[in-house]
Amino acid sequence: MTKKAEPGIHGHLLSPIGIVHSCFKEKFGIPRQPGLVPAAGATLELLPPYDREEALRGLEQFSHAWIIFLFHQAIQKQWKPMVRPPRLGGNQRLGVFATRSPFRPNPLGLSAVELGVIERVDGRLQIHLGGADLVEGTPVLDIKPYVPYADSIPAARGGFADQAPEAALSVVFEPDAETVLTQLGDSGRLRELIRQVLRQDPRPAYRDARDEQREYGMHLHDFNIRWRHDGDLVRVLAITHQR
Amino acid sequence: MTKKAEPGIHGHLLSPIGIVHSCFKEKFGIPRQPGLVPAAGATLELLPPYDREEALRGLEQFSHAWIIFLFHQAIQKQWKPMVRPPRLGGNQRLGVFATRSPFRPNPLGLSAVELGVIERVDGRLQIHLGGADLVEGTPVLDIKPYVPYADSIPAARGGFADQAPEAALSVVFEPDAETVLTQLGDSGRLRELIRQVLRQDPRPAYRDARDEQREYGMHLHDFNIRWRHDGDLVRVLAITHQR
Repeated sequence: MTKKAEPGIHGHLLSPIGIVHSCFKEKFGIPRQPGLVPAAGATLELLPPYDREEALRGLEQFSHAWIIFLFHQAIQKQWKPMVRPPRLGGNQRLGVFATRSPFRPNPLGLSAVELGVIERVDGRLQIHLGGADLVEGTPVLDIKPYVPYADSIPAARGGFADQAPEAALSVVFEPDAETVLTQLGDSGRLRELIRQVLRQDPRPAYRDARDEQREYGMHLHDFNIRWRHDGDLVRVLAITHQR
Repeated sequence: MTKKAEPGIHGHLLSPIGIVHSCFKEKFGIPRQPGLVPAAGATLELLPPYDREEALRGLEQFSHAWIIFLFHQAIQKQWKPMVRPPRLGGNQRLGVFATRSPFRPNPLGLSAVELGVIERVDGRLQIHLGGADLVEGTPVLDIKPYVPYADSIPAARGGFADQAPEAALSVVFEPDAETVLTQLGDSGRLRELIRQVLRQDPRPAYRDARDEQREYGMHLHDFNIRWRHDGDLVRVLAITHQR
């Protein structure tokens, strides 16, 4: 097999074992933790030489797994000891190690995801993942089974992130968006995905009064979604196919 | 601040942000998952330039944290797609990604630990950790707060590791060992640590009949502990100070 992981004085070289294909094509709109958007679908494609069924044997016995990945869009030359978590409205600073911010000394991400079907498609070995908060192209360093007796600590005290953020917004589809969903023959899956993503309010925490009237856009799968906020309502204005 | 984490075609360079000081001085005897030996104490010392109080600000609000670390004693040039987990008696092979084995393509470890006091001792910034399953000298790549709403999935199905391993053994201290505990003025902490470690049965899964009569030894803190198995009893024979 291949030579890997050489230790060094200055660091340790880690290589991706897989890559994520996700409904989230850009950072904007991605839920801030896994599990918040159950309709979010992703696949993890194993890269050679790791794309071997044997390496996954037994994983189907587990309902969930840990994905350790690189925040490849957040790689920076400088680290900062404090960051502003969006959960605190973006106006309070916390130590980087007290947050799950992607901007950290080693840009490692950690997500518990639901395990779906494992299959080989066009020669590529893929694991389907549910509830993922991962952007398209995310390099994956490791997959580990979720071991509930060691990993699940329901009584843990969660500081500023003790509760899941409330999804207080209602999502309505304007006529143009409805027409597209009908034309697409959507079974309800795309509608539900859009709804789950937008009710989380993906907008940046820092906003001024003008931003309240702004039209926002994001990519989901091959679609461009445009919406506007109207109090506690999110109005989906347009859904455009990108291909 | 320092230059970090350069992406490359062949991998990604990650540098330790800290190092573990542990009661476990060698791999043998270390619990197979975190939380199994609550009496296990460890400190995580932050290394320069990361040893700054600001980088930890807010972490004290969390009861638990994730430690992502390198299995530095398991770094190997070759990876194998299948391993034999000790939980299965060492005679069944599973895919490496279906296990928490240290022998994996990227030698990354993941442990949920209890957070204790954060303090600076002799100029070194340290975080006290409870329930850790980490060996002395473990290089740490990241600390992340444990976020219960995203990380705790009590209903997860855990495959071959669904339940915590049963600690079916009883530990008795033979007179020589008792004498040393008394001489040391042990408050009960060392006794309890030894008890918790040995009742987990740290012996390798592969054993033959002769091994049942064998005397075993391990290091805990600065002590050498020697014991023998006697059915469901573990007899602690000797405790010797190493320094």
